[in-house]
Amino acid sequence: MDFETLSWGVDEHGVLTLRLNRPDQLNSFNLTMAKELEQAFVQVRDDNDVRAVVVTGAGRAFCAGMDLTADGNVFGLDETAAPTPEALRDHLTEDPYQDGVRDTGGKVTLAIHACDKPVIAAINGPAVGIGATMSLAMDIRLVSTAARIGFVFGRLGITPEAASSFFLPRLVGLQTALEWVYAADILSPQEVLAKGLVRSIHEPEDLLPTAHSLAASFVKDRSSAALALTRRLMYAGAGAGHPIEAHRRDSLAMWHSSIGDGKEGVAAFLEKRRPVFTRNAADAPAIE
Amino acid sequence: MDFETLSWGVDEHGVLTLRLNRPDQLNSFNLTMAKELEQAFVQVRDDNDVRAVVVTGAGRAFCAGMDLTADGNVFGLDETAAPTPEALRDHLTEDPYQDGVRDTGGKVTLAIHACDKPVIAAINGPAVGIGATMSLAMDIRLVSTAARIGFVFGRLGITPEAASSFFLPRLVGLQTALEWVYAADILSPQEVLAKGLVRSIHEPEDLLPTAHSLAASFVKDRSSAALALTRRLMYAGAGAGHPIEAHRRDSLAMWHSSIGDGKEGVAAFLEKRRPVFTRNAADAPAIE
Amino acid sequence: MDFETLSWGVDEHGVLTLRLNRPDQLNSFNLTMAKELEQAFVQVRDDNDVRAVVVTGAGRAFCAGMDLTADGNVFGLDETAAPTPEALRDHLTEDPYQDGVRDTGGKVTLAIHACDKPVIAAINGPAVGIGATMSLAMDIRLVSTAARIGFVFGRLGITPEAASSFFLPRLVGLQTALEWVYAADILSPQEVLAKGLVRSIHEPEDLLPTAHSLAASFVKDRSSAALALTRRLMYAGAGAGHPIEAHRRDSLAMWHSSIGDGKEGVAAFLEKRRPVFTRNAADAPAIE
Repeated sequence: MDFETLSWGVDEHGVLTLRLNRPDQLNSFNLTMAKELEQAFVQVRDDNDVRAVVVTGAGRAFCAGMDLTADGNVFGLDETAAPTPEALRDHLTEDPYQDGVRDTGGKVTLAIHACDKPVIAAINGPAVGIGATMSLAMDIRLVSTAARIGFVFGRLGITPEAASSFFLPRLVGLQTALEWVYAADILSPQEVLAKGLVRSIHEPEDLLPTAHSLAASFVKDRSSAALALTRRLMYAGAGAGHPIEAHRRDSLAMWHSSIGDGKEGVAAFLEKRRPVFTRNAADAPAIE
Repeated sequence: MDFETLSWGVDEHGVLTLRLNRPDQLNSFNLTMAKELEQAFVQVRDDNDVRAVVVTGAGRAFCAGMDLTADGNVFGLDETAAPTPEALRDHLTEDPYQDGVRDTGGKVTLAIHACDKPVIAAINGPAVGIGATMSLAMDIRLVSTAARIGFVFGRLGITPEAASSFFLPRLVGLQTALEWVYAADILSPQEVLAKGLVRSIHEPEDLLPTAHSLAASFVKDRSSAALALTRRLMYAGAGAGHPIEAHRRDSLAMWHSSIGDGKEGVAAFLEKRRPVFTRNAADAPAIE
Repeated sequence: MDFETLSWGVDEHGVLTLRLNRPDQLNSFNLTMAKELEQAFVQVRDDNDVRAVVVTGAGRAFCAGMDLTADGNVFGLDETAAPTPEALRDHLTEDPYQDGVRDTGGKVTLAIHACDKPVIAAINGPAVGIGATMSLAMDIRLVSTAARIGFVFGRLGITPEAASSFFLPRLVGLQTALEWVYAADILSPQEVLAKGLVRSIHEPEDLLPTAHSLAASFVKDRSSAALALTRRLMYAGAGAGHPIEAHRRDSLAMWHSSIGDGKEGVAAFLEKRRPVFTRNAADAPAIE
């Protein structure tokens, strides 16, 4: 993969390190990075050699937010569009507003959401604005002692984006989510750990090794198909209205995984040996 | 605003102090208070001079629950109504049961929910029954050391109300929510803080100053339109089934706020000066 | 009640102890246990003499998961079924796949979900696989110091089931839920308490007495009809998209409970005496 704003490297366990790579601009987010991140996570979904992802930033920042120094229309919006709720509701899949109305951060986080592989954010420094909200769509967040998290949209007169309102209340609860977006302050590693936003705090030199080790532990001797289904189940279940919706998806996922890699899994367990799974994420059937 | 059971006062930052004001009855909730609270939060939504709200109780209680000493039908129900799920589902917006079937606590909390301004509960003493559940629809809860919280409905043979079942599991998780409504006990400030129901505990003399200071920090140099959209996004996102629903709302909120107060916000940031925002909550467009 | 894999005993408070009773197989879950658990929770719902339930395991385990040593098709699946999302979506209530496609764990947890009585898991030892996930549909989890919890499906190449994806994110948040199902590790009592999965840890000899005492406190001097409605409200509210859905259900539940046991509850409160409630869970009206 060849990107202008990202670097891409896959290790021997199938763990991709995807690095935001504009260090001189503190990895600030511009329209090129938005498009490349969306492409990268489509590639993650489609590439059998990628089994898990660690996202981090080059240099001293994770992502300092939207690049407000860009010339012209920083948000890339078509100011003449005059979008309505009905138009977006009816036509989102047809995407008539691809570049003029749809939030670019959301296009990235929807691609992360759909990537079918475990994704770990290794937040090595400031993660502000879209730098903070993009991490919410990743499955697990690790921070270094140098991390600072800021949902600062309110200071600019704008609103949180990137589908953050789906994720943030499910990570820290409604009360904390509201306080953070109202206050729009920069939060310390200790504050975000205390509220459950991040899994753990690490010394800067330990951050990436821990993230890689965790990612490897998720995929070693595992079925990528079962992992993909598991990830879809959990996010869908978190949004479900009733357990029977989960049951419907479970039944499909269990039927397919049990007669897929599950037979090898049970056999290996009974024979007390390591399993040899063969199904890729791309083999996971639709469960919706 | 002139109320029988409430007092209304707005400070120089646009922070309204709304005080439950039946101190000799421990601010117990009667049908007059229900109607006045609903009116008050409609007024909060419509009044550009109100930018945030602090709700507290006069005297030593926050709200001791439904006034069970009221003569006659304390819940104000039409006992001949025989409501069905279908009738309520089909006709809720037409409201055929305005005073005879619809839960009065819920009419209040739906008005709080729709008020488009940050709302902080400053719980200064006992908050029991509807006194506890009405606070759940407020964005953030602060308690004094004198606060006591009780979801005591089960002791009376009735059920939690005021849409509390939407809010409580999203604030403290399902397990704690179920234990609290089953046990129907009076909870201490320490217990509710430990489970995340409240943000912080304060000495009685510090409670209101802290609440006012927090409210002021949410609105000073902020766009009231962006705050209104942010509040709607977070609650809608907490109930969304899939991130794409959040993305649809985000796209509308970002499009409008970016070409609204957002331009001033970016300009002020780049010029290193305080922004001058002009949009009111009433200017926030529909995003549903 | 006469079961092959369960024992059933009701105490003087109406608290049923339902014991998984295959101690020599560590109470591992087979198709007989699945059917008996489903029957047992239907009976819980229908039996007015059962007012609350404590589920525990005989011997040293709670439930060691699916019995993988069973002859033949351990999951009981019809491998020729080739189920589709559409077929399950359209026909779930008609149940064309009763024994061939529908997840057996989910049939059990849906019966628990629908049982209309408080359910406490007293996890006395290992709870692995379906042993872990079945406990998620119970309202409150207590563990002994001997408990070990494992969402180990990934090790077998299969997916979490039993509608766990509805419950787990609402109990521990999305981040922890994802880490636990990805890691597929065995968790200690301290780990699951720290993340809020369980209410409390007890010495082995104190586990059942505490569970029974808690269950009795939920039903003593309480209306079983109001308890049933309260339980339905909380789970439905946790899955609701908007507070108005909770308000619709609240209005029905309050109307019925207020003119039912609520009159006695208010009278007893005003007369400072213990209430005498008469409504059973079976008297609770439909609120959906």
